[in-house]
Amino acid sequence: MQRLGRQWQRGGKTVVFVPTMGFLHRGHASLMERARKLAGHKGRVVVSVFVNPTQFGPNEDFSRYPRDLEGDQWLCRAAGVNVFFAPEDAEMYPADFSTFVQEERLAGGMEGVARPGHFRGVTTVVAKLFNAVLPTAAVFGAKDFQQASVIRRMTRDLNFPIRIVVAPTLREADGLAMSSRNKYLSPSQRDQATVLRRAILGAQEAVARRPAMAAQLRRETALLVAAQTEARLDYVEFFDPETLEPVRTVKRGTRMALAVFVGKTRLIDNDTL
Amino acid sequence: MQRLGRQWQRGGKTVVFVPTMGFLHRGHASLMERARKLAGHKGRVVVSVFVNPTQFGPNEDFSRYPRDLEGDQWLCRAAGVNVFFAPEDAEMYPADFSTFVQEERLAGGMEGVARPGHFRGVTTVVAKLFNAVLPTAAVFGAKDFQQASVIRRMTRDLNFPIRIVVAPTLREADGLAMSSRNKYLSPSQRDQATVLRRAILGAQEAVARRPAMAAQLRRETALLVAAQTEARLDYVEFFDPETLEPVRTVKRGTRMALAVFVGKTRLIDNDTL
Repeated sequence: MQRLGRQWQRGGKTVVFVPTMGFLHRGHASLMERARKLAGHKGRVVVSVFVNPTQFGPNEDFSRYPRDLEGDQWLCRAAGVNVFFAPEDAEMYPADFSTFVQEERLAGGMEGVARPGHFRGVTTVVAKLFNAVLPTAAVFGAKDFQQASVIRRMTRDLNFPIRIVVAPTLREADGLAMSSRNKYLSPSQRDQATVLRRAILGAQEAVARRPAMAAQLRRETALLVAAQTEARLDYVEFFDPETLEPVRTVKRGTRMALAVFVGKTRLIDNDTL
Repeated sequence: MQRLGRQWQRGGKTVVFVPTMGFLHRGHASLMERARKLAGHKGRVVVSVFVNPTQFGPNEDFSRYPRDLEGDQWLCRAAGVNVFFAPEDAEMYPADFSTFVQEERLAGGMEGVARPGHFRGVTTVVAKLFNAVLPTAAVFGAKDFQQASVIRRMTRDLNFPIRIVVAPTLREADGLAMSSRNKYLSPSQRDQATVLRRAILGAQEAVARRPAMAAQLRRETALLVAAQTEARLDYVEFFDPETLEPVRTVKRGTRMALAVFVGKTRLIDNDTL
């Protein structure tokens, strides 16, 4: 991969990279489409599929995370991807691997609290993949808003010569954000999973009229989630979209993010209010 | 710098990088000479001068570390360096800088114990400089043996497409390793500073005959240093040159490293036994 990346560098090629954990769905396809457009017909698009062990906690779903390398390859081919890059665990993390990249400000709240060590794994693997692929740009999905912020900051702080592009979340017809983890949901859980989107739409509506207190919106979200028999709120946060600092007064432009367990499946979503 | 680096990449140029903290001496000049040879007459040599605040502890000599940008430029010009890169603190570390690179195995002992946070600063700034310069190879001095090991590991772990070259320590006629910090020494301290080299030569001589216990060699080093009125041993370590793991039995090929305060000046040295 790196040999190819260097060859492209020498040719001055635009190379757009979409790192994923595979089990690709239409949300990923929209990232590839964006990448294809950014690369132009002379450029190259690389998609990596790597279920990164270092970003999963000990009690998380690493081993049962859905995998379908063959299906992924088909989808990539259909999307006009030039290189499908699926490295092995042992190649990415040799036994004496010992270097980690850590963002210490934006990665502190929300997913950082709920999943200790998660972002350290994310920034480490993304730094590795950036150096393996050597792209000129990389595309990330807005569904993982905090992740995109952390990666953008890492890219700036470590001077990676890479443009970070964040593409909008794709949703099912009923508003559920597309995610490989939706596959875990039973039919009744699948119905209840729309609560994440409904909570956001409720907050958007409230804030469209006038600013609201974060504490009040938090209570309303908690009630909405509690009304679902199989759902449990992990967190809901209202924050500045640049600094990710929580706000007390929620206005238009404030970002909202939440994580909800539906059965054993943890789902996340976010949007601008 | 990065624009130039990318231009060179497109041209397929060999680019050899020598990162330094400036106040350059003949030791640095020998690294540049090595870089010049590696780059060949078609390649490029970049020297950076940056006294990196994040690798100094709160009670260390960051603010009084010797600086001489003009002298450094002269020396680089004489050494056939193509680019002299001296970034500003505020450019390297904007106010909201928050990403760090940390090596967690090799960086644990010796300098890592004596200077908490030191290697985190080193790996962070070297990762930044690598991405700013985009070299094909980088040259480090063997005087900072542990640093070279940590950087080599980081380079491998994060997949930087950069060859790490370690060049031998240059010494004064009496054996003192060249260092910008030698400038701090009074004449009497300068005499006593040869104790680091003498300790190594003593251990080399002992081990040339037969293996020795690390504890015994440590005692002998401590006695030798204690015989100097202005010197105080910080640490002495005998370790495997690959893993940096301390050994109990010291043989030929074992590496020895030590740090000694001479007055308020902290000096380090190391060699193969």
